[in-house]
Amino acid sequence: MKKIAVVLAGNGVFDGSEIHEATLTLLAIDQKGAEYQCFAPDVNQAHVVNHITGEEMAETRNVLIEAARIARGNIKALSEYNAANYDAIVFPGGFGAAKNLCTFAFDGPECKVNRDVENAIRNTVVAEKPVGALCISPALIAKVLGDVRVTIGQDQETADSIETLGATHVKTSHGEIVYDEKYKVITTPCYMLEASISQIATGANNVIGKILELA
Amino acid sequence: MKKIAVVLAGNGVFDGSEIHEATLTLLAIDQKGAEYQCFAPDVNQAHVVNHITGEEMAETRNVLIEAARIARGNIKALSEYNAANYDAIVFPGGFGAAKNLCTFAFDGPECKVNRDVENAIRNTVVAEKPVGALCISPALIAKVLGDVRVTIGQDQETADSIETLGATHVKTSHGEIVYDEKYKVITTPCYMLEASISQIATGANNVIGKILELA
Repeated sequence: MKKIAVVLAGNGVFDGSEIHEATLTLLAIDQKGAEYQCFAPDVNQAHVVNHITGEEMAETRNVLIEAARIARGNIKALSEYNAANYDAIVFPGGFGAAKNLCTFAFDGPECKVNRDVENAIRNTVVAEKPVGALCISPALIAKVLGDVRVTIGQDQETADSIETLGATHVKTSHGEIVYDEKYKVITTPCYMLEASISQIATGANNVIGKILELA
Repeated sequence: MKKIAVVLAGNGVFDGSEIHEATLTLLAIDQKGAEYQCFAPDVNQAHVVNHITGEEMAETRNVLIEAARIARGNIKALSEYNAANYDAIVFPGGFGAAKNLCTFAFDGPECKVNRDVENAIRNTVVAEKPVGALCISPALIAKVLGDVRVTIGQDQETADSIETLGATHVKTSHGEIVYDEKYKVITTPCYMLEASISQIATGANNVIGKILELA
């Protein structure tokens, strides 16, 4: 049975992993007869956001501990990830991917990437295994890999930032994927477009389908 | 377009709503061409649980604010729920349903029910509209309605507690639903069984399918 690592960034669209994207990635993996293992970096979130008001809360939360909520407790620290033991790696979206896995949401192309995240991406690529990224996560992949072909949908400002990193941005609509053959990177826009939850399911399904075709 | 109220109990299986059950309930509603509106009571969680260790954390979190993470911010206080404006109401599971919506996880059949939750269930039943409940949430429905036919799967101790409330428990397996004609209550076991995420999708789909057939 093929095994896919899913890297989470917390638990909630505004400061962590987007919950629908994360859950529907796990569902797509299971429905297609593969296994998943969730991972997250063991670091504090950049901040905690009240998801009703959008305001920052005076709290500190840990990315790994919060991500465990999506994983029902079955999660490992990303430092333990070994590309040899998995057939592919996937990054669901949500602001956490651009706040906790890297600092793209704050610093744009000048962002820093968490070391465990960078190692996980590089080691997977070196092992010639597929890397999936949903929503804003392709920005993270572009920061690490540079000359990669990705999509985050239609947002011109984000696309421009991504191209500043040496990447090529391809405009896409709901559920469409972009496949970079050189690095085996598969991306889809998900909630970077104004989308319904069914459209998120389609995007996740298409990314996982392509990954399993390659893995 | 039919509109279904989804009542959340926080965000995470051990102290809130089970995230897969909640997300896949929203997905089923959307995929079947209906609309959803999330609700949650504006109260503090009974406690906060570290989902890796299972231990309590010295924190206070609000059910409505945490549930907003699943709802991407689009959520209302349950006190605002009016059965006249919705075609049905659904309660995903997770311990939060038995800790925050009522105290069944702590007090068994002697549990107390949050007033907004009790009003929402009673008003929906009086309006002769369907009530769905997944996982452990049927215990909450049994506490409020009494002589109702429900399922939580196979767990004998929980089934016995539910029968103490005057309800009839029907044993079921993955994805199966139990329909109570008198109250229009539809229940399914989900993660009250050792289940895969695909089996949760099946359970949620079957509950929402039956609700839309009745609504």
